[in-house]
Amino acid sequence: VTAAPTPYLAVDLGVLDRNIARMAGSGVAVRPHVKTHKCVEIARRQLAAGATGITVATVAEAEVFVAAGCTDVFIAYPLWVDAARGVRLRSLAERASVRIGVESVEGAQAAARWGGPLEVLVEVDSGHHRTGVVPSRAGEVAAAAARAGLGVRGVFTFPGHGYGVGSAAEAATDESTSLSQAASAVRSAGLQVDVLSGGSTPTASLADTSVLTELRPGVYVFNDAQQLELGSCAAGEVALTTAATVISRGPDRVVLDAGSKVLGADRPGWVTGFGRLLDHLDARITALSEHHATVEFRPGSVLPELGSAVRVVPNHVCNAVNLADELVVVSEGSVVDRWRVAARGANT
Amino acid sequence: VTAAPTPYLAVDLGVLDRNIARMAGSGVAVRPHVKTHKCVEIARRQLAAGATGITVATVAEAEVFVAAGCTDVFIAYPLWVDAARGVRLRSLAERASVRIGVESVEGAQAAARWGGPLEVLVEVDSGHHRTGVVPSRAGEVAAAAARAGLGVRGVFTFPGHGYGVGSAAEAATDESTSLSQAASAVRSAGLQVDVLSGGSTPTASLADTSVLTELRPGVYVFNDAQQLELGSCAAGEVALTTAATVISRGPDRVVLDAGSKVLGADRPGWVTGFGRLLDHLDARITALSEHHATVEFRPGSVLPELGSAVRVVPNHVCNAVNLADELVVVSEGSVVDRWRVAARGANT
Repeated sequence: VTAAPTPYLAVDLGVLDRNIARMAGSGVAVRPHVKTHKCVEIARRQLAAGATGITVATVAEAEVFVAAGCTDVFIAYPLWVDAARGVRLRSLAERASVRIGVESVEGAQAAARWGGPLEVLVEVDSGHHRTGVVPSRAGEVAAAAARAGLGVRGVFTFPGHGYGVGSAAEAATDESTSLSQAASAVRSAGLQVDVLSGGSTPTASLADTSVLTELRPGVYVFNDAQQLELGSCAAGEVALTTAATVISRGPDRVVLDAGSKVLGADRPGWVTGFGRLLDHLDARITALSEHHATVEFRPGSVLPELGSAVRVVPNHVCNAVNLADELVVVSEGSVVDRWRVAARGANT
Repeated sequence: VTAAPTPYLAVDLGVLDRNIARMAGSGVAVRPHVKTHKCVEIARRQLAAGATGITVATVAEAEVFVAAGCTDVFIAYPLWVDAARGVRLRSLAERASVRIGVESVEGAQAAARWGGPLEVLVEVDSGHHRTGVVPSRAGEVAAAAARAGLGVRGVFTFPGHGYGVGSAAEAATDESTSLSQAASAVRSAGLQVDVLSGGSTPTASLADTSVLTELRPGVYVFNDAQQLELGSCAAGEVALTTAATVISRGPDRVVLDAGSKVLGADRPGWVTGFGRLLDHLDARITALSEHHATVEFRPGSVLPELGSAVRVVPNHVCNAVNLADELVVVSEGSVVDRWRVAARGANT
């Protein structure tokens, strides 16, 4: 097995396995979100390390992982189920335990009409303000789902407002408070709540495991520049980098052949650039085009040579992986395997 | 031919053909940048409309289009040519006229060593400050390239600093001034300059065609939300949209099932959101996750229904296309074809 021409994505196997083991030892059930890696080989490692099942975002992702043998899948998304999606969900349910999210009365009715007697969790907005009902309304949606013929199993939330420097602790508190309130509301509607599901990589270590029954982190397997800058991982815990070549070099700056078509264009306001260089943590990627990353160094730094390879940490690894057909697997500096990004582009 | 489950990319064939015809009639040679569409069928339409050849950004893109029969390809990128890339370039040169960019003495020497007697254009920085030499240094790089055995054919630039509200006119002036100066510098070094190549979609209509010998616009075939907000296209000239479904609906906001994994995450500071809705131009996409777009409407607007489909215009269409395996081709409201994004992921 040899390396690929740059740019390509490289996974450090030792770091990956340590990241998986660390999260598996967190003392609560882990149902990893496989949208981060979209890779059957990595899901198998997570399950072997004790994961209770997997989380996906789309029916298409579920189809890839069920075909690969995963038997317990939560689609953590308030799907709008129409006739075609209903057929696909029924087919999945014949082969695996498949649960989906609901967040509206209408959505629950559509899911029941087209998807059959699915099991569902009610999505709760714990402060990220994306989808999900306010906790007090969880009972109403759960009751409508039950009336429509769905099997209500609990509640879930994504504390995405923990993505911000210093925001994780408060988001983790919001997460447990909201899930508790929502579970009470569902129980008040006369329904059982077995699952209170939350979690994200920044909040995972802060989650209230006396309330949550499972965590659904995704990014932790690889980590990325966002997690580095949030302080939720150390540089030695970054398992995925983009191998890039220096194509231009000037005073205190270089330009790399890795741009937004391999790194992704994510750049929230709270990060310091368009990604980081793992071996030059003082440098910043100040501009990104489709095939160029402009890297600025502190004055007087020793710059990498023209034609040399550097390791770039993407800002948001989930989007970087979704741009690649395969991951080059490296162990102790040698390429040992290539893993297909089996669910790349599985958006439907 | 039927439509796909959402989210998917739809191309309006009538709008596409009008966009191609309009640029072809601009009075100067057009060498379209096919990185925007990565699609053989669209390149053929551009060539049939009079394009003099195509522009690509990578060797891998060149390989796709040469295999499809394109015989005149400019790789508008200062490639760092190593042994492996040299083999690929020599193979391409047996089947097509292939030119590459150079912007350093070292890069020219590497290209000559590994790539053989390639034809090159010297890249000039006209103000975008990414890659390229200052115009006065173009003669030095051209001379080094010629000494190394490369065939210098001219100079090129990308006036990318024209991407900004009100910036296009000044960038177009910089483009022609820089190309003129660079051409003079190359001629002073005793070399011939046949090609002065520039252009981008925002600056194309402003380019000084008494100086430039060709334009290399890419985005114009589809246009996108960036071009809409720059004023370089009208809403009726947007040929590509993402079909998305409303999955959540609240007071003055909806959430769609199209996120950064289908739209791309591009969001420069000068745009008003993460894309636009073609049929709701007053609305703004205020937040984007991997599978969610949060759309805010003016108070009192009539919102699209839960489960209904809407058309989203990506901010940067080149990155959206690179996330898709195929384009659904629509003519007068009916799906008439599907085109493969043949060069998706062709980053090397």
